Amino acid sequence: MINNQRNLSMLMDSYELTMAYAYFKKGMKDKEAVFDCFYRMNPDKGGYCIAAGLEQLVDYILNMHFSEDDITFFRNKYHFDEDFLDYLKDFAFRGTIYAVKEGTIVYPNTPIVTVKANIIEAQLIETMLLLTVNHQTLIATKASRIVRAAKGRTIMEFGARRAHSYDAAIIGARAAYIGGVDATATVAAEQDYKVPATGTIAHSFIQAFDNEYEAFEAFAQVYPDNCHLLIDTYDVLESGIKNAIRVAKEVLEPNGHRLKSVRIDSGDLAYLSKKVRKALDDAFMSDCKIVISNSMDEYLITSLLDQGAPIDSFGVGERLITSKSTPVFGGVYKLVAIEKDGMLIPKIKKSENIEKITNPGFKKLWRLYSKSTGNSICDVLTTRDEVINEAKEYWFVDPLKPWSEKLTTDFTAVELQKTIIENGKLVYELPTIEEIRAYVKQQLEHELWVEELRFENPHVHYVNQSKKQYQLKMDLLAKAEHMGEN
Amino acid sequence: MINNQRNLSMLMDSYELTMAYAYFKKGMKDKEAVFDCFYRMNPDKGGYCIAAGLEQLVDYILNMHFSEDDITFFRNKYHFDEDFLDYLKDFAFRGTIYAVKEGTIVYPNTPIVTVKANIIEAQLIETMLLLTVNHQTLIATKASRIVRAAKGRTIMEFGARRAHSYDAAIIGARAAYIGGVDATATVAAEQDYKVPATGTIAHSFIQAFDNEYEAFEAFAQVYPDNCHLLIDTYDVLESGIKNAIRVAKEVLEPNGHRLKSVRIDSGDLAYLSKKVRKALDDAFMSDCKIVISNSMDEYLITSLLDQGAPIDSFGVGERLITSKSTPVFGGVYKLVAIEKDGMLIPKIKKSENIEKITNPGFKKLWRLYSKSTGNSICDVLTTRDEVINEAKEYWFVDPLKPWSEKLTTDFTAVELQKTIIENGKLVYELPTIEEIRAYVKQQLEHELWVEELRFENPHVHYVNQSKKQYQLKMDLLAKAEHMGEN
Repeated sequence: MINNQRNLSMLMDSYELTMAYAYFKKGMKDKEAVFDCFYRMNPDKGGYCIAAGLEQLVDYILNMHFSEDDITFFRNKYHFDEDFLDYLKDFAFRGTIYAVKEGTIVYPNTPIVTVKANIIEAQLIETMLLLTVNHQTLIATKASRIVRAAKGRTIMEFGARRAHSYDAAIIGARAAYIGGVDATATVAAEQDYKVPATGTIAHSFIQAFDNEYEAFEAFAQVYPDNCHLLIDTYDVLESGIKNAIRVAKEVLEPNGHRLKSVRIDSGDLAYLSKKVRKALDDAFMSDCKIVISNSMDEYLITSLLDQGAPIDSFGVGERLITSKSTPVFGGVYKLVAIEKDGMLIPKIKKSENIEKITNPGFKKLWRLYSKSTGNSICDVLTTRDEVINEAKEYWFVDPLKPWSEKLTTDFTAVELQKTIIENGKLVYELPTIEEIRAYVKQQLEHELWVEELRFENPHVHYVNQSKKQYQLKMDLLAKAEHMGEN
Repeated sequence: MINNQRNLSMLMDSYELTMAYAYFKKGMKDKEAVFDCFYRMNPDKGGYCIAAGLEQLVDYILNMHFSEDDITFFRNKYHFDEDFLDYLKDFAFRGTIYAVKEGTIVYPNTPIVTVKANIIEAQLIETMLLLTVNHQTLIATKASRIVRAAKGRTIMEFGARRAHSYDAAIIGARAAYIGGVDATATVAAEQDYKVPATGTIAHSFIQAFDNEYEAFEAFAQVYPDNCHLLIDTYDVLESGIKNAIRVAKEVLEPNGHRLKSVRIDSGDLAYLSKKVRKALDDAFMSDCKIVISNSMDEYLITSLLDQGAPIDSFGVGERLITSKSTPVFGGVYKLVAIEKDGMLIPKIKKSENIEKITNPGFKKLWRLYSKSTGNSICDVLTTRDEVINEAKEYWFVDPLKPWSEKLTTDFTAVELQKTIIENGKLVYELPTIEEIRAYVKQQLEHELWVEELRFENPHVHYVNQSKKQYQLKMDLLAKAEHMGEN
């Protein structure tokens, strides 16, 4: 087990500590604050994201503490007063975490995680919260795109060697599995997170023998029940497929075994896969699958299938594990309310870039579903004290067209955020990875509009606001014009 | 300490285990093999890379072992015979690792790491070797580009929140520091790897107070000696810089302190930095620095400096920690020789793509330097038994122009790979991170041709071969035409 019981509490930005000290010295340590974690754009110009990483976030928060060594480090580096060091010595997260269930389909500008805690606690978890959610949401979302491109064919995640270090490989495989891949090559991901690990053979195996046939023969003898052969070490058509068929006929079939698959990792994959398919079929080996690897992603897979390449399974490496085409998921963590005189005061962050203006206040996030189709109609942000009554017609504001209020009837409304940690205690039963995976699948197949699933110019999901939430935002924006003054 | 004493032995691709079992069952477990780790293209079409990650690779290899839990996992998952499980129970890496010193400037198609070990040991370390070297080399190289773009100005690495999980943040900061950044925001990177951690304040800090002035005042009171202010929360020119100057005059300067810096994180950074510089200078605060952040990389920094933006320091986040413009470093691990009848037989990997053909055999990598200038002239690959004699003129082959042999005189020749681990024991003194950093700097300033440092169309470093090495490759290529036959 690689990833259990690591204390990641020291993984934070230095400014979180120095701000915490300033809050402490200014007597603000018990001031309650609310922060939202949300993002602004779907990667790859897609239509949705898959929220992931909640399980690791919970592990981190529940284990958060500073050791004697950490306190010594703080003393030496920051010269904090001893009263603050004592505070850190006793530190635990005692606040409340709300989040959408892991695997929830999410959209820009909606809170994936909301933290309500004293401002020091809320501040010290910023980096870990963001990097956990950003990384896994990025990879789960990329995986989902690749899986959908393969239209039901098997996808294996093969990217560990190009991942951005150890966790990126192991936890990346977890996120990819949530996003829909069928398996990973990474053994530790099965051991730590129950992602099924699988694989074939490498070119070096073939080269370690005097010739290709001997290598295939050796592998078939050791794995008669589970024989997968890599056929592009020398020449796919001139030798690889011929030797694979010969081994099937001479070693496997006489003993009642079948060759499970052949893998091609280089060359013109559309052309080669067709020729290999024909050779296999001609040898009465229609059950032998063709596995393709080499810089696959949703675009290349789409292109291969468009060309009619008879591929059964794809090994996907670097372009998945780094989300190569969009390697950054820009989740942010913004203050939306802060306590003053015992009340939570909503806060807004203005910006010269209009799309960077935040949605203020401690909110609720709802998803409205059509009663007749089950499709999700839109998301709605409301203030915390609002309840959407399904029995009535519901009027709300599209913030992009605020001049015309909108009406929905015949809907169900679900509050998407659950209370995960309450006053420092876990109050939520974390789902298994199989449950998370099934939840993703169910939403993609039954709740999303097919127009949101397109790779090119997908439908932009509606994220609306209640009239009260919208008015709050407008009021605060007007007021914020003067916040720099004093 | 987050990263000490992790056992990463289970971080491997499943096929490494299944191949290992096949080698074991076929009586090949003691067969010696030689693998080279090298890459084929510089990221961002650059002129060089900085090899990094050796320290973590050594840690991993020296600690490599399988626990009882791991053995149970293997038994349940793979159904290996007990004799192989016993072998794994006693497993340790007993082979030899050669590598270029960490921080060495390297070029495509030269071995960064060479492994000589029995084929099972050499195979089981493949994933960890590659991902460690790939990740850190990628980030160190990207950092070097960004640092050079800043032409002596300070670069702070701020990317943890967008990193691909925990290690990518912490070890990524280590690699960025090797590449030349001056500091990181990530506290754990200082604690674990002695990368200086630093930071300013967040927008949330400003918003946690009733107005901007009160926030600045509070920060200045707590940090009079080390006051850095973020001035773009409301309006840089209308309020941010005015409040910063007012706090400097009212809180800091009366007590003999100075405002250290102001940071701008949004808006038109070229325009704003000039206006802010003027305001600071007019207030007799020429010593107050301007820090800029917001999606910086080598291209944006170059553009800002070209516009004459008076910036002293850059905070660089997601585009460094993910190497956004080229997030994949394509290091590979290829078999180059294998024992047969007690002899090491050189092996070559053919490919339909000519640039993917490997350099066969257990080799040496040399760098030749001009005696008069100290500049590196070229790299040379030789067979293992060759020695380049500096006292004589040296004839070698440019593999891109093999028809004309080349001559060098008046040179020194340095063998770049050192023996790091010999028969499983560390025989090399690992340098400190400051020594690695200094080594990088020395090479960039004194050894590289300036033409290799260009961002646009840099000079392609010569990687030549000895006549003997070149002839070996030609002979094996001719022979490989028949390797698929038997």
